[in-house]
Amino acid sequence: MAQFVRDLQGRIVHQLQQIENSMMLGGDGTDTASPSSSSSSSSSSAQFLHDKWTKTGGLGEGMSCVLQGGLAFEKAAVNVSVVEGPLSKQAAMQMRTERGKTSLPTGDEYEKNTPHFFATGVSLIVHPVNPHVPTVHANYRYFEIELAGGNHDNDDARGLWWFGGGCDLTPYFLYEDDAQHFHTVHREACDKHDKALYPRFKKWCDEYFYLPHRGETRGVGGLFFDDLDESHGDQESLFAFVQSCGNVFLDSYVPIVTKRLHTPFTEEHTRWQQIRRGRYVEFNLLHDRGTKFGLAAPEPRVESILASLPLTARWEYNYQVDESSEEGKLMKVLREPREWAK
Amino acid sequence: MAQFVRDLQGRIVHQLQQIENSMMLGGDGTDTASPSSSSSSSSSSAQFLHDKWTKTGGLGEGMSCVLQGGLAFEKAAVNVSVVEGPLSKQAAMQMRTERGKTSLPTGDEYEKNTPHFFATGVSLIVHPVNPHVPTVHANYRYFEIELAGGNHDNDDARGLWWFGGGCDLTPYFLYEDDAQHFHTVHREACDKHDKALYPRFKKWCDEYFYLPHRGETRGVGGLFFDDLDESHGDQESLFAFVQSCGNVFLDSYVPIVTKRLHTPFTEEHTRWQQIRRGRYVEFNLLHDRGTKFGLAAPEPRVESILASLPLTARWEYNYQVDESSEEGKLMKVLREPREWAK
Repeated sequence: MAQFVRDLQGRIVHQLQQIENSMMLGGDGTDTASPSSSSSSSSSSAQFLHDKWTKTGGLGEGMSCVLQGGLAFEKAAVNVSVVEGPLSKQAAMQMRTERGKTSLPTGDEYEKNTPHFFATGVSLIVHPVNPHVPTVHANYRYFEIELAGGNHDNDDARGLWWFGGGCDLTPYFLYEDDAQHFHTVHREACDKHDKALYPRFKKWCDEYFYLPHRGETRGVGGLFFDDLDESHGDQESLFAFVQSCGNVFLDSYVPIVTKRLHTPFTEEHTRWQQIRRGRYVEFNLLHDRGTKFGLAAPEPRVESILASLPLTARWEYNYQVDESSEEGKLMKVLREPREWAK
Repeated sequence: MAQFVRDLQGRIVHQLQQIENSMMLGGDGTDTASPSSSSSSSSSSAQFLHDKWTKTGGLGEGMSCVLQGGLAFEKAAVNVSVVEGPLSKQAAMQMRTERGKTSLPTGDEYEKNTPHFFATGVSLIVHPVNPHVPTVHANYRYFEIELAGGNHDNDDARGLWWFGGGCDLTPYFLYEDDAQHFHTVHREACDKHDKALYPRFKKWCDEYFYLPHRGETRGVGGLFFDDLDESHGDQESLFAFVQSCGNVFLDSYVPIVTKRLHTPFTEEHTRWQQIRRGRYVEFNLLHDRGTKFGLAAPEPRVESILASLPLTARWEYNYQVDESSEEGKLMKVLREPREWAK
């Protein structure tokens, strides 16, 4: 898995950098100047920074690849990490009570036999400059917990393991073609393994990326799954499934980017994009499981965890949109998720 | 208390509006154009919107006064609310376990005798345009819980009540004079009641407005207190204390605004301001008690609760500041809170 996510990171960064570079060539000649408040010069393309890091004490390493203030991308981050260490009591409790992992120790038992975790994954976010190009997020991860001690009655010494992940699209303006394309590519990746997967993970995505106080989903969804363990299949089949999902990422997103990259846009379009980015921040800080787990871990790699936040966001008091406007059409599908896959 | 907070709201809105209007008169002739990305015209002053609201079902009302895209203020919100209703099970549990309110019912007892709460308060936030003018936040509130049923052994039918509040300053550049002035005014307001209050509430403020994952406080602090109940004094004395704090708000902040309002600033100053506003958002969404309580309440008045968020914010990957720079000097006091009051 660690090898897979590193390889996938390389392929994605390469492709996104090519798109960014293509903006310098002038494309089809439309205006590509950005009205956003990037502090970098907005007249030249930006490069991915490759930032390797290791945790002090040697219990983790990773590489964050981040591009900021570009012509195509306001911010893009593709991060890989391989970390391990003692599972915090809080995380153990939460996994026990909220996610049914009842073999995890509690109370005094936790102190005596603190579990050890290992986790690896790739996490990416792309926030484009042009409001007609949607934001995308993907994350594929593997988690393993070694249960210390031998006093678990049904302990077969294997401990716990599971895969999690998904990929979801957050448009600022609704292009039905784009949502259909994105979902169809992901459905096909799932169907190769089991036709029951896509409907389940599509629904889970709509439920997970949901802001209850706003009564709206984050975007038009995609896939979300977690806790894919031995009750769902053997490790190799599930790994193959996760690879299929990760491998279609570029096919699901890049055609949408190239199609919309030169759509003309106004300051009002950008203002709406910035307001929607505010909702993205609300979800990530109020609800996202990965953000909470990451920040609660000992010695969190904060910059990598919060790399998912947009470069810029906006909150206007009581901003209302007209139902019949383009903004209103987007809001309608965020309030009532639809089926998109063909 | 409801009358006090409404009156205070009126005084504060009036004064802030005067400052905003004064920007149209040209002031001392320095450049007051804003480089921030306000979508409103930045060549005319903005007006406070007075937005009265009531909850459907009649269990709450309030007025949010919000100004956006002004010349002096990017966003300012002064909100008052008077709400009541059944205390949620989650809130009851949290108050019981985290805040020692052991007379609140749990389990089946909660279902049989659901407590009823009443809350009123004023909450305000000012995010100025000029990065040399600090952001300020203040909140003064009264909370009451009526315990239903008569099967509480030590129930004297009074139920629970307490005051909470505080006021804290978040500069983007450190002016020691400003921090001293702000703290001194608040210390004097506290000292009139009890000299032990300021040191306690100053420390509590530094501890409360703290971002653990960043290892930094939100700003240079001020006052923070909560759960001021009968164990701290009688209701009238505590109400008098809260009024003293609220009544010095304008004295503590306005002189700083007028002193810094015309300080020239660059795009780089604004960029730093925007990054710091990102930290403000992190605190409010990840940690703030009021935000969490508010959003978890039935039928939350979301726009009022989230009015505290800045109009615009920014997240740059791994932004580093030089220790000897002006930004670095601010960071030093955020990492090691100091005593400011004279």
